[in-house]
Amino acid sequence: MTGTAPAPFAADDYRARMARATRAAADAGLAGLLVAPGPDMVWLTGYAPTAVTERLTLLVLVPGQDPVLVVPALEAPDAAQAPGAPALALRDWTDGKDPYALTAALLEHRGRFGVSDNAWALHLLGLQQTLPDAAYASLTTALPMLRAVKDAAELELMAAAAAAADATFEEIRDVTFSGRRESEIGAELARLLRRFGHSQVDFTIVGSGPNGANPHHEMGDRVIERGDMVVLDFGGLKDGYGSDTTRTVHVGEPTDEERRVHDVVREAQEAGFRAVRPGVACQEVDRAARAVIRDAGYGEYFIHRTGHGIGVTTHEPPYMIEGEEQALVPGMCFSVEPGVYLPGRFGVRIEDIVTVTEDGGRRLNDTTRELVTVD
Amino acid sequence: MTGTAPAPFAADDYRARMARATRAAADAGLAGLLVAPGPDMVWLTGYAPTAVTERLTLLVLVPGQDPVLVVPALEAPDAAQAPGAPALALRDWTDGKDPYALTAALLEHRGRFGVSDNAWALHLLGLQQTLPDAAYASLTTALPMLRAVKDAAELELMAAAAAAADATFEEIRDVTFSGRRESEIGAELARLLRRFGHSQVDFTIVGSGPNGANPHHEMGDRVIERGDMVVLDFGGLKDGYGSDTTRTVHVGEPTDEERRVHDVVREAQEAGFRAVRPGVACQEVDRAARAVIRDAGYGEYFIHRTGHGIGVTTHEPPYMIEGEEQALVPGMCFSVEPGVYLPGRFGVRIEDIVTVTEDGGRRLNDTTRELVTVD
Repeated sequence: MTGTAPAPFAADDYRARMARATRAAADAGLAGLLVAPGPDMVWLTGYAPTAVTERLTLLVLVPGQDPVLVVPALEAPDAAQAPGAPALALRDWTDGKDPYALTAALLEHRGRFGVSDNAWALHLLGLQQTLPDAAYASLTTALPMLRAVKDAAELELMAAAAAAADATFEEIRDVTFSGRRESEIGAELARLLRRFGHSQVDFTIVGSGPNGANPHHEMGDRVIERGDMVVLDFGGLKDGYGSDTTRTVHVGEPTDEERRVHDVVREAQEAGFRAVRPGVACQEVDRAARAVIRDAGYGEYFIHRTGHGIGVTTHEPPYMIEGEEQALVPGMCFSVEPGVYLPGRFGVRIEDIVTVTEDGGRRLNDTTRELVTVD
Repeated sequence: MTGTAPAPFAADDYRARMARATRAAADAGLAGLLVAPGPDMVWLTGYAPTAVTERLTLLVLVPGQDPVLVVPALEAPDAAQAPGAPALALRDWTDGKDPYALTAALLEHRGRFGVSDNAWALHLLGLQQTLPDAAYASLTTALPMLRAVKDAAELELMAAAAAAADATFEEIRDVTFSGRRESEIGAELARLLRRFGHSQVDFTIVGSGPNGANPHHEMGDRVIERGDMVVLDFGGLKDGYGSDTTRTVHVGEPTDEERRVHDVVREAQEAGFRAVRPGVACQEVDRAARAVIRDAGYGEYFIHRTGHGIGVTTHEPPYMIEGEEQALVPGMCFSVEPGVYLPGRFGVRIEDIVTVTEDGGRRLNDTTRELVTVD
């Protein structure tokens, strides 16, 4: 998801972030950063264009130069209102002019540049054609930890978003599930997230019975019945920062097998959480959670990575996945969300957002991880 | 905007579109098309992933091969439900595997490929690294007319979306403007668009008084007063196809100057419309509208192109702009929307969606273009 709701920061905050990002780019051997509308731009400038279109809007951060925002003339007045605008020079261009040439004039022609993951291919190809001797790397490749470590103000916003998601779960567990469609429960989750302060709802997954075995099943017309396991995975943006939590509930009394699978996932989630501390590689979090599920005999049914970073967007580095050797750093925030998916039958997933502290991890979500029964 | 609401088409329609696109690619000397989630994918397959993320989803169209959708395993069950899925082979990949290698295996290693404008740079860079000897061009560059010519069923949907926007204008002209905030009128426009069948509202521009002189001002807290000109520009998606219309109204009686500027814009819009017929270059539509405004002495205040194509998204080729030599073809749909913007004072814009017929043009919007006074 590319969340772009502005957060409550001031020009000086954005100036400091842009300076930090530019230094990090220089340290990584980059000649600059090319930042597209979306999470990177909103994090660095507070600017989120009304629409992302074929007209180039690009933040250019080059060591030794002041930050420049290349912006269509039509949108310059809006950009000038962005909270980070006082820390930026606006360079506007009108229809019919070549915005890539304008951008290229700001760049070293043989440099290597980091580019926002979600920059449009149209624009990257335009730059590559204008500056064929430059090299380009995605920010996930070149500077994956750019937004990963949250400062104190950001952590407060992350905690508030998580608390709103927790409040949503506390309400939803009291509603009647049986006899209602997944889509009705999903609409209720969205309503609650907004009631608890979310400006944007990004997903409301309601996977009942066999649908729960499809981890990305959103919600549908299936009528929830007594005896169903129901995966509830929901989140969005509150004051510009993301929430994302999952609990699996049971309609009426669970069977022994359902309890057992839920216990396994709960223990896996606990093991993943306990692995979190500074210096540990991301993949160790995945390994810790996965080992519990594998040892219980369900290894083949845990079919996704254990977690993803979260901040101004709900999916970002670092990823908790085998092969990711990035060390955890205090202030990082990510999900720990193992699951077991039994095709055609049911699924179980438990997910908290966790932040790395000086000596371990702290869960930002804290509703019960025991199996809750609902009506 | 990247509209992705599914339209009511069947698997055979998508099969035919993919075959047509693949032939067009071959005719253009391309070894294939690499289609990202967004308007191209929804037009070719009816598939719109719940979220566009760092996980690669890519439609691969290669002459002589069946269409393949590369999709994350987590999302494969959802993709299999897409209306175009029966015309596709799904090739799924799990977290930790390399989706670029999987994609590259389908492609000629020295071929030239057309890539969706809005494909993520992350994915284009991944493909460029995996297939360094291939060449890539944006679809706007390589195959700009791919979605531009609408067939009869599409034209019906375009006309229905325009009719819903017109119905919205007929209602909004009867509400009270003076004393209300722009944002209230904007919310009312959104409510009306939805009431008349829009599933998605993409923009509701309400530019009153001096705000109207900023063409992309969305709406704000300004309280509209008697004596204001108000630019109303609104649209979104209905049954998967876009609407986009602008009328400028006046609160109470206009001055002679306001009437004169409105007359100039109306005549410019009429001149642009009258220039539309098969074989005429896009830039002629811009020139025809611009000449009227220039001859009236307002040339420097018409600061954008005259129009943009529209279909499953609200901005797409062809563009009505100086330098665009593409010839008009029956079935193309685009806006004709000249404007005059007097900084600090007011703006006027009039916009219809026009489709090219066998012997001229047909307006899909048809509310009055005379200056309407509101309360």
